[in-house]
Amino acid sequence: MAQDMTLLWGSGSPPCWRVMIALEEKNLQGYNSKLLSFDKMEHKSQQVLDINPRGQVPSFKHGDLIINESYAACFYLESRFKSQGTKLIPDGAEEQALMFQRTFEGLTLYEKMAAVIFYTYYVPEGERLEAALKRNEEALVAELKLWEGYLEKLGSGSYLAGKSVSMTDVVVFPTVATLFRFGLSAERYPKLGAYYALMKERPSVKASWPPHWLENPKGQDTLKDM
Amino acid sequence: MAQDMTLLWGSGSPPCWRVMIALEEKNLQGYNSKLLSFDKMEHKSQQVLDINPRGQVPSFKHGDLIINESYAACFYLESRFKSQGTKLIPDGAEEQALMFQRTFEGLTLYEKMAAVIFYTYYVPEGERLEAALKRNEEALVAELKLWEGYLEKLGSGSYLAGKSVSMTDVVVFPTVATLFRFGLSAERYPKLGAYYALMKERPSVKASWPPHWLENPKGQDTLKDM
Repeated sequence: MAQDMTLLWGSGSPPCWRVMIALEEKNLQGYNSKLLSFDKMEHKSQQVLDINPRGQVPSFKHGDLIINESYAACFYLESRFKSQGTKLIPDGAEEQALMFQRTFEGLTLYEKMAAVIFYTYYVPEGERLEAALKRNEEALVAELKLWEGYLEKLGSGSYLAGKSVSMTDVVVFPTVATLFRFGLSAERYPKLGAYYALMKERPSVKASWPPHWLENPKGQDTLKDM
Repeated sequence: MAQDMTLLWGSGSPPCWRVMIALEEKNLQGYNSKLLSFDKMEHKSQQVLDINPRGQVPSFKHGDLIINESYAACFYLESRFKSQGTKLIPDGAEEQALMFQRTFEGLTLYEKMAAVIFYTYYVPEGERLEAALKRNEEALVAELKLWEGYLEKLGSGSYLAGKSVSMTDVVVFPTVATLFRFGLSAERYPKLGAYYALMKERPSVKASWPPHWLENPKGQDTLKDM
Protein backbone atom coordinates (compact mmCIF):
# COMPACT_ATOMS: atom_id res chain seq x y z
CA MET A 1 0.00 0.00 0.00
CA ALA A 2 1.18 3.45 -0.89
CA GLN A 3 -0.66 5.66 1.55
CA ASP A 4 2.28 8.06 1.72
CA MET A 5 1.87 8.87 -1.98
CA THR A 6 -0.45 11.36 -3.64
CA LEU A 7 -1.12 11.82 -7.33
CA LEU A 8 -2.97 14.78 -8.81
CA TRP A 9 -4.03 13.85 -12.33
CA GLY A 10 -6.40 14.54 -15.20
CA SER A 11 -8.34 11.93 -17.17
CA GLY A 12 -6.82 11.07 -20.56
CA SER A 13 -3.60 13.04 -20.05
CA PRO A 14 -0.78 10.78 -21.32
CA PRO A 15 1.77 12.21 -18.83
CA CYS A 16 -0.58 11.49 -15.90
CA TRP A 17 -1.37 8.04 -17.22
CA ARG A 18 2.35 7.15 -17.35
CA VAL A 19 2.68 7.66 -13.61
CA MET A 20 -0.51 5.71 -12.91
CA ILE A 21 0.75 2.73 -14.92
CA ALA A 22 4.13 2.91 -13.16
CA LEU A 23 2.40 2.88 -9.77
CA GLU A 24 0.35 -0.18 -10.77
CA GLU A 25 3.35 -2.02 -12.22
CA LYS A 26 5.32 -1.40 -9.03
CA ASN A 27 2.40 -2.70 -6.92
CA LEU A 28 1.90 0.71 -5.35
CA GLN A 29 -1.87 0.65 -5.15
CA GLY A 30 -3.77 2.56 -2.49
CA TYR A 31 -2.16 5.95 -3.08
CA ASN A 32 -4.17 9.12 -2.62
CA SER A 33 -5.65 9.71 -6.04
CA LYS A 34 -7.01 13.17 -6.83
CA LEU A 35 -8.73 13.44 -10.18
CA LEU A 36 -8.80 17.06 -11.38
CA SER A 37 -10.99 18.49 -14.12
CA PHE A 38 -9.21 20.15 -17.05
CA ASP A 39 -12.58 21.63 -18.11
CA LYS A 40 -12.86 23.40 -14.77
CA MET A 41 -9.18 24.44 -15.04
CA GLU A 42 -8.43 22.70 -11.76
CA HIS A 43 -4.85 22.06 -12.95
CA LYS A 44 -4.31 25.81 -12.58
CA SER A 45 -5.78 25.83 -9.05
CA GLN A 46 -3.77 26.92 -6.03
CA GLN A 47 -3.65 23.30 -4.85
CA VAL A 48 -1.62 22.41 -7.95
CA LEU A 49 0.36 25.66 -8.16
CA ASP A 50 1.55 25.10 -4.60
CA ILE A 51 3.41 21.98 -5.66
CA ASN A 52 3.88 22.70 -9.38
CA PRO A 53 4.57 26.31 -10.35
CA ARG A 54 3.91 25.49 -14.03
CA GLY A 55 0.30 24.55 -13.17
CA GLN A 56 0.41 21.15 -14.80
CA VAL A 57 -0.45 17.60 -13.91
CA PRO A 58 0.72 15.05 -13.00
CA SER A 59 1.81 16.30 -9.64
CA PHE A 60 3.15 13.48 -7.52
CA LYS A 61 4.16 13.44 -3.89
CA HIS A 62 5.96 10.71 -1.98
CA GLY A 63 5.90 11.88 1.61
CA ASP A 64 7.32 15.39 1.35
CA LEU A 65 9.10 14.78 -1.93
CA ILE A 66 7.51 16.38 -4.95
CA ILE A 67 7.94 15.14 -8.51
CA ASN A 68 5.93 16.79 -11.25
CA GLU A 69 7.59 15.48 -14.38
CA SER A 70 6.00 12.23 -15.53
CA TYR A 71 9.24 10.60 -16.68
CA ALA A 72 10.94 11.69 -13.47
CA ALA A 73 8.21 10.10 -11.35
CA CYS A 74 8.40 6.83 -13.30
CA PHE A 75 12.21 6.64 -13.02
CA TYR A 76 12.04 7.56 -9.35
CA LEU A 77 9.48 4.83 -8.60
CA GLU A 78 11.55 2.22 -10.43
CA SER A 79 14.66 3.32 -8.57
CA ARG A 80 13.05 3.34 -5.10
CA PHE A 81 11.07 0.09 -5.58
CA LYS A 82 13.49 -1.87 -7.76
CA SER A 83 12.68 -5.29 -6.37
CA GLN A 84 8.91 -4.74 -6.14
CA GLY A 85 6.44 -5.49 -8.94
CA THR A 86 7.55 -5.39 -12.58
CA LYS A 87 11.23 -4.78 -13.26
CA LEU A 88 11.11 -1.79 -15.58
CA ILE A 89 14.84 -1.41 -16.28
CA PRO A 90 16.26 -4.70 -17.59
CA ASP A 91 19.72 -5.92 -16.59
CA GLY A 92 21.42 -6.78 -19.88
CA ALA A 93 23.38 -4.17 -21.83
CA GLU A 94 21.53 -4.83 -25.07
CA GLU A 95 18.09 -4.75 -23.42
CA GLN A 96 18.99 -1.59 -21.52
CA ALA A 97 20.29 0.20 -24.59
CA LEU A 98 17.08 -0.47 -26.52
CA MET A 99 14.88 0.35 -23.54
CA PHE A 100 16.56 3.72 -22.89
CA GLN A 101 16.60 4.56 -26.60
CA ARG A 102 12.89 3.85 -27.13
CA THR A 103 11.90 5.43 -23.81
CA PHE A 104 13.36 8.76 -24.88
CA GLU A 105 12.21 8.46 -28.49
CA GLY A 106 8.78 8.22 -26.90
CA LEU A 107 8.99 11.93 -26.13
CA THR A 108 9.35 12.64 -29.84
CA LEU A 109 6.36 10.44 -30.67
CA TYR A 110 4.32 12.30 -28.06
CA GLU A 111 5.39 15.72 -29.35
CA LYS A 112 4.63 14.85 -32.96
CA MET A 113 1.22 13.51 -31.97
CA ALA A 114 0.47 16.56 -29.81
CA ALA A 115 1.45 18.92 -32.65
CA VAL A 116 -1.41 17.42 -34.67
CA ILE A 117 -4.19 16.51 -32.24
CA PHE A 118 -3.68 19.52 -29.98
CA TYR A 119 -2.83 21.97 -32.78
CA THR A 120 -5.81 24.22 -32.11
CA TYR A 121 -5.09 24.10 -28.38
CA TYR A 122 -1.44 25.15 -28.78
CA VAL A 123 -1.80 27.68 -31.59
CA PRO A 124 -4.02 30.75 -31.06
CA GLU A 125 -6.84 31.15 -33.56
CA GLY A 126 -5.36 33.98 -35.63
CA GLU A 127 -2.03 32.16 -36.04
CA ARG A 128 -3.19 28.80 -37.39
CA LEU A 129 -1.88 27.87 -40.81
CA GLU A 130 -2.93 25.03 -43.05
CA ALA A 131 0.67 24.58 -44.19
CA ALA A 132 2.00 24.23 -40.64
CA LEU A 133 -0.62 21.67 -39.66
CA LYS A 134 0.06 19.72 -42.87
CA ARG A 135 3.79 19.69 -42.04
CA ASN A 136 2.98 18.45 -38.54
CA GLU A 137 0.81 15.69 -40.00
CA GLU A 138 3.58 14.57 -42.34
CA ALA A 139 6.05 14.52 -39.47
CA LEU A 140 3.65 12.39 -37.43
CA VAL A 141 3.19 9.90 -40.29
CA ALA A 142 6.98 9.54 -40.68
CA GLU A 143 7.26 9.00 -36.93
CA LEU A 144 4.45 6.42 -36.87
CA LYS A 145 6.16 4.48 -39.65
CA LEU A 146 9.33 4.30 -37.56
CA TRP A 147 7.47 2.78 -34.61
CA GLU A 148 5.52 0.41 -36.85
CA GLY A 149 8.90 -0.72 -38.20
CA TYR A 150 10.39 -1.13 -34.72
CA LEU A 151 7.54 -3.44 -33.71
CA GLU A 152 7.76 -5.36 -36.98
CA LYS A 153 11.45 -6.00 -36.38
CA LEU A 154 10.85 -7.25 -32.82
CA GLY A 155 8.27 -9.80 -33.99
CA SER A 156 4.70 -10.45 -32.96
CA GLY A 157 3.70 -10.33 -29.33
CA SER A 158 6.55 -7.96 -28.53
CA TYR A 159 6.48 -4.98 -26.26
CA LEU A 160 8.11 -1.73 -27.35
CA ALA A 161 11.62 -2.62 -26.19
CA GLY A 162 11.57 -6.41 -26.46
CA LYS A 163 9.85 -9.52 -25.18
CA SER A 164 9.12 -8.09 -21.72
CA VAL A 165 7.27 -5.05 -20.49
CA SER A 166 9.68 -2.25 -19.56
CA MET A 167 9.84 1.44 -18.74
CA THR A 168 9.28 2.12 -22.44
CA ASP A 169 5.78 0.64 -22.30
CA VAL A 170 4.96 2.53 -19.12
CA VAL A 171 5.78 5.89 -20.66
CA VAL A 172 4.89 5.33 -24.34
CA PHE A 173 1.72 3.22 -24.14
CA PRO A 174 -0.45 6.21 -23.11
CA THR A 175 0.65 7.95 -26.32
CA VAL A 176 -0.19 4.89 -28.42
CA ALA A 177 -3.61 4.62 -26.75
CA THR A 178 -4.22 8.32 -27.43
CA LEU A 179 -3.33 7.84 -31.09
CA PHE A 180 -6.05 5.19 -31.39
CA ARG A 181 -8.48 7.25 -29.30
CA PHE A 182 -8.02 9.96 -31.94
CA GLY A 183 -8.83 7.60 -34.78
CA LEU A 184 -5.55 6.05 -35.92
CA SER A 185 -6.25 3.11 -38.21
CA ALA A 186 -5.13 -0.27 -36.89
CA GLU A 187 -5.44 -1.54 -40.47
CA ARG A 188 -2.88 0.96 -41.68
CA TYR A 189 -0.64 0.42 -38.63
CA PRO A 190 -1.22 -3.26 -37.81
CA LYS A 191 1.81 -3.69 -35.51
CA LEU A 192 0.88 -0.66 -33.45
CA GLY A 193 -2.70 -1.96 -33.45
CA ALA A 194 -1.61 -5.36 -32.16
CA TYR A 195 0.57 -3.74 -29.50
CA TYR A 196 -2.36 -1.58 -28.41
CA ALA A 197 -4.61 -4.63 -28.15
CA LEU A 198 -1.97 -6.53 -26.16
CA MET A 199 -1.38 -3.74 -23.65
CA LYS A 200 -5.10 -2.94 -23.23
CA GLU A 201 -5.54 -6.24 -21.42
CA ARG A 202 -2.71 -5.62 -19.00
CA PRO A 203 -3.95 -5.20 -15.40
CA SER A 204 -1.93 -1.99 -14.86
CA VAL A 205 -3.54 -0.45 -17.94
CA LYS A 206 -7.04 -1.65 -17.14
CA ALA A 207 -6.76 -0.30 -13.59
CA SER A 208 -5.75 3.13 -14.87
CA TRP A 209 -7.92 3.46 -18.00
CA PRO A 210 -9.08 7.09 -18.38
CA PRO A 211 -12.51 7.33 -16.71
CA HIS A 212 -13.96 9.63 -19.36
CA TRP A 213 -12.96 7.13 -22.06
CA LEU A 214 -14.89 4.47 -20.15
CA GLU A 215 -17.92 6.74 -19.92
CA ASN A 216 -17.71 7.64 -23.58
CA PRO A 217 -15.90 4.89 -25.50
CA LYS A 218 -16.12 6.69 -28.83
CA GLY A 219 -13.17 8.94 -29.51
CA GLN A 220 -12.39 11.45 -32.25
CA ASP A 221 -11.50 10.72 -35.86
CA THR A 222 -8.76 13.34 -36.21
CA LEU A 223 -6.14 10.80 -37.31
CA LYS A 224 -8.28 8.42 -39.36
CA ASP A 225 -6.67 9.28 -42.72
CA MET A 226 -3.13 9.34 -41.43
CA MET B 1 39.62 3.70 -22.34
CA ALA B 2 36.49 3.49 -24.42
CA GLN B 3 37.72 2.27 -27.78
CA ASP B 4 34.55 0.28 -28.33
CA MET B 5 32.50 3.48 -28.29
CA THR B 6 31.83 5.90 -31.14
CA LEU B 7 30.17 9.30 -30.96
CA LEU B 8 29.01 11.26 -33.98
CA TRP B 9 28.43 14.83 -32.92
CA GLY B 10 28.16 18.46 -33.98
CA SER B 11 29.90 21.42 -32.33
CA GLY B 12 27.66 23.47 -30.04
CA SER B 13 24.70 21.08 -30.14
CA PRO B 14 23.45 20.78 -26.54
CA PRO B 15 22.22 17.18 -27.04
CA CYS B 16 25.66 16.13 -28.34
CA TRP B 17 27.41 17.98 -25.57
CA ARG B 18 25.37 16.13 -22.93
CA VAL B 19 26.76 12.79 -24.08
CA MET B 20 30.31 14.17 -24.25
CA ILE B 21 30.11 15.41 -20.65
CA ALA B 22 28.65 12.07 -19.52
CA LEU B 23 31.53 10.22 -21.19
CA GLU B 24 34.07 12.47 -19.46
CA GLU B 25 32.37 12.19 -16.06
CA LYS B 26 32.33 8.40 -16.36
CA ASN B 27 36.05 8.38 -17.26
CA LEU B 28 35.29 7.05 -20.72
CA GLN B 29 37.93 8.96 -22.62
CA GLY B 30 39.48 7.63 -25.80
CA TYR B 31 36.24 6.92 -27.65
CA ASN B 32 36.04 7.36 -31.41
CA SER B 33 34.98 10.94 -31.81
CA LYS B 34 33.57 12.01 -35.18
CA LEU B 35 32.86 15.71 -35.47
CA LEU B 36 30.29 16.39 -38.20
CA SER B 37 29.57 19.73 -39.84
CA PHE B 38 25.99 21.02 -39.59
CA ASP B 39 26.86 23.59 -42.28
CA LYS B 40 27.75 20.81 -44.70
CA MET B 41 24.61 18.93 -43.62
CA GLU B 42 26.72 15.96 -42.58
CA HIS B 43 24.12 15.02 -39.95
CA LYS B 44 21.88 14.07 -42.88
CA SER B 45 24.62 11.94 -44.49
CA GLN B 46 24.23 8.23 -45.13
CA GLN B 47 26.74 7.54 -42.34
CA VAL B 48 24.32 9.07 -39.83
CA LEU B 49 21.09 7.84 -41.46
CA ASP B 50 22.42 4.28 -41.27
CA ILE B 51 22.38 4.43 -37.50
CA ASN B 52 19.79 7.17 -36.94
CA PRO B 53 16.84 7.26 -39.36
CA ARG B 54 15.89 10.75 -38.12
CA GLY B 55 19.22 12.12 -39.39
CA GLN B 56 20.21 13.73 -36.10
CA VAL B 57 23.19 13.81 -33.83
CA PRO B 58 24.30 12.67 -31.35
CA SER B 59 24.58 9.16 -32.64
CA PHE B 60 26.31 6.94 -30.15
CA LYS B 61 27.50 3.37 -30.46
CA HIS B 62 28.79 1.06 -27.77
CA GLY B 63 29.98 -1.99 -29.64
CA ASP B 64 26.98 -2.89 -31.78
CA LEU B 65 24.48 -1.12 -29.55
CA ILE B 66 23.13 2.12 -30.95
CA ILE B 67 21.72 4.94 -28.84
CA ASN B 68 20.76 8.17 -30.56
CA GLU B 69 18.81 9.96 -27.88
CA SER B 70 21.07 12.10 -25.73
CA TYR B 71 19.25 11.43 -22.45
CA ALA B 72 19.14 7.71 -23.28
CA ALA B 73 22.90 7.63 -23.86
CA CYS B 74 23.60 9.44 -20.59
CA PHE B 75 21.32 7.14 -18.57
CA TYR B 76 22.78 4.10 -20.31
CA LEU B 77 26.35 5.16 -19.52
CA GLU B 78 25.50 5.76 -15.87
CA SER B 79 23.77 2.40 -15.65
CA ARG B 80 26.58 0.44 -17.32
CA PHE B 81 29.43 2.22 -15.52
CA LYS B 82 27.81 2.87 -12.15
CA SER B 83 30.93 2.51 -10.07
CA GLN B 84 33.26 4.34 -12.48
CA GLY B 85 33.88 8.08 -12.42
CA THR B 86 31.27 10.47 -11.06
CA LYS B 87 28.16 8.96 -9.52
CA LEU B 88 25.41 10.67 -11.52
CA ILE B 89 22.38 9.15 -9.77
CA PRO B 90 22.59 9.75 -6.02
CA ASP B 91 21.48 7.13 -3.49
CA GLY B 92 19.17 8.99 -1.13
CA ALA B 93 15.45 9.26 -1.83
CA GLU B 94 15.40 13.03 -1.44
CA GLU B 95 18.46 13.57 -3.65
CA GLN B 96 17.08 11.22 -6.27
CA ALA B 97 13.67 12.85 -6.35
CA LEU B 98 15.21 16.28 -6.94
CA MET B 99 17.71 14.96 -9.47
CA PHE B 100 15.06 13.17 -11.57
CA GLN B 101 12.69 16.14 -11.33
CA ARG B 102 15.29 18.69 -12.49
CA THR B 103 16.74 16.36 -15.11
CA PHE B 104 13.39 16.12 -16.88
CA GLU B 105 12.49 19.75 -16.32
CA GLY B 106 15.70 20.35 -18.26
CA LEU B 107 13.90 19.25 -21.41
CA THR B 108 11.39 22.05 -20.91
CA LEU B 109 14.17 24.60 -20.40
CA TYR B 110 15.82 23.40 -23.61
CA GLU B 111 12.56 23.54 -25.60
CA LYS B 112 11.72 27.02 -24.38
CA MET B 113 15.22 28.23 -25.23
CA ALA B 114 15.12 26.57 -28.66
CA ALA B 115 11.73 28.14 -29.42
CA VAL B 116 13.43 31.55 -29.14
CA ILE B 117 17.00 31.16 -30.39
CA PHE B 118 16.13 28.70 -33.18
CA TYR B 119 12.80 30.33 -34.08
CA THR B 120 13.85 31.20 -37.62
CA TYR B 121 15.32 27.73 -38.06
CA TYR B 122 12.14 25.94 -36.98
CA VAL B 123 9.55 28.23 -38.58
CA PRO B 124 9.60 28.74 -42.38
CA GLU B 125 9.96 32.33 -43.52
CA GLY B 126 6.38 32.93 -44.64
CA GLU B 127 4.97 31.62 -41.34
CA ARG B 128 6.91 33.69 -38.81
CA LEU B 129 4.84 35.88 -36.54
CA GLU B 130 5.95 38.61 -34.18
CA ALA B 131 3.24 37.58 -31.70
CA ALA B 132 4.36 33.96 -31.62
CA LEU B 133 8.01 34.85 -31.06
CA LYS B 134 7.01 37.29 -28.32
CA ARG B 135 4.99 34.56 -26.60
CA ASN B 136 7.98 32.22 -26.83
CA GLU B 137 10.19 34.90 -25.30
CA GLU B 138 7.80 35.42 -22.40
CA ALA B 139 7.65 31.67 -21.81
CA LEU B 140 11.45 31.52 -21.74
CA VAL B 141 11.69 34.38 -19.23
CA ALA B 142 9.18 32.63 -16.93
CA GLU B 143 11.19 29.42 -17.24
CA LEU B 144 14.51 31.18 -16.54
CA LYS B 145 13.05 32.72 -13.40
CA LEU B 146 12.10 29.26 -12.16
CA TRP B 147 15.67 27.99 -12.55
CA GLU B 148 17.13 31.14 -11.03
CA GLY B 149 14.84 30.49 -8.05
CA TYR B 150 15.85 26.84 -7.80
CA LEU B 151 19.51 27.80 -7.56
CA GLU B 152 18.77 30.55 -5.08
CA LYS B 153 16.98 28.07 -2.82
CA LEU B 154 19.87 25.60 -2.96
CA GLY B 155 22.39 28.22 -1.88
CA SER B 156 25.64 29.43 -3.39
CA GLY B 157 28.08 26.97 -4.86
CA SER B 158 25.29 24.48 -5.58
CA TYR B 159 24.84 22.37 -8.63
CA LEU B 160 21.42 22.05 -10.24
CA ALA B 161 20.19 19.25 -7.99
CA GLY B 162 22.16 19.84 -4.83
CA LYS B 163 25.65 20.03 -3.45
CA SER B 164 27.10 17.44 -5.82
CA VAL B 165 27.28 17.17 -9.57
CA SER B 166 24.60 14.79 -10.90
CA MET B 167 22.89 13.68 -14.08
CA THR B 168 20.99 16.97 -14.03
CA ASP B 169 24.20 18.93 -14.61
CA VAL B 170 25.31 16.58 -17.36
CA VAL B 171 22.13 17.09 -19.35
CA VAL B 172 21.17 20.66 -18.44
CA PHE B 173 24.53 22.47 -18.35
CA PRO B 174 24.83 22.53 -22.17
CA THR B 175 21.52 24.41 -22.28
CA VAL B 176 22.71 26.90 -19.67
CA ALA B 177 25.95 27.44 -21.58
CA THR B 178 23.99 27.99 -24.78
CA LEU B 179 21.80 30.58 -23.05
CA PHE B 180 24.92 32.58 -22.16
CA ARG B 181 26.43 32.00 -25.61
CA PHE B 182 23.30 33.67 -26.98
CA GLY B 183 23.70 36.67 -24.74
CA LEU B 184 21.82 35.94 -21.52
CA SER B 185 22.75 38.50 -18.88
CA ALA B 186 24.54 37.13 -15.83
CA GLU B 187 23.63 40.38 -14.07
CA ARG B 188 19.96 39.74 -14.57
CA TYR B 189 20.31 36.04 -13.71
CA PRO B 190 23.13 36.01 -11.15
CA LYS B 191 22.52 32.48 -9.83
CA LEU B 192 22.51 31.00 -13.30
CA GLY B 193 25.60 33.09 -14.04
CA ALA B 194 27.41 31.76 -10.98
CA TYR B 195 26.43 28.21 -11.86
CA TYR B 196 27.71 28.70 -15.41
CA ALA B 197 31.03 30.02 -14.08
CA LEU B 198 31.34 27.10 -11.64
CA MET B 199 30.69 24.44 -14.27
CA LYS B 200 32.90 26.06 -16.91
CA GLU B 201 35.93 25.13 -14.85
CA ARG B 202 34.95 21.49 -14.50
CA PRO B 203 37.35 19.17 -16.34
CA SER B 204 34.52 17.30 -18.13
CA VAL B 205 33.18 20.58 -19.44
CA LYS B 206 36.57 21.97 -20.43
CA ALA B 207 37.44 18.76 -22.28
CA SER B 208 34.23 18.94 -24.29
CA TRP B 209 33.89 22.69 -24.91
CA PRO B 210 32.46 23.28 -28.41
CA PRO B 211 35.44 23.79 -30.75
CA HIS B 212 33.80 26.58 -32.73
CA TRP B 213 33.13 28.48 -29.50
CA LEU B 214 36.85 28.22 -28.73
CA GLU B 215 37.72 29.50 -32.19
CA ASN B 216 35.22 32.32 -31.96
CA PRO B 217 34.59 33.17 -28.31
CA LYS B 218 32.06 35.88 -29.09
CA GLY B 219 28.51 34.59 -29.32
CA GLN B 220 25.23 36.20 -30.35
CA ASP B 221 23.20 38.76 -28.40
CA THR B 222 19.75 37.28 -29.10
CA LEU B 223 18.88 36.99 -25.41
CA LYS B 224 20.56 40.10 -24.03
CA ASP B 225 17.32 41.91 -23.12
CA MET B 226 15.60 38.88 -21.70
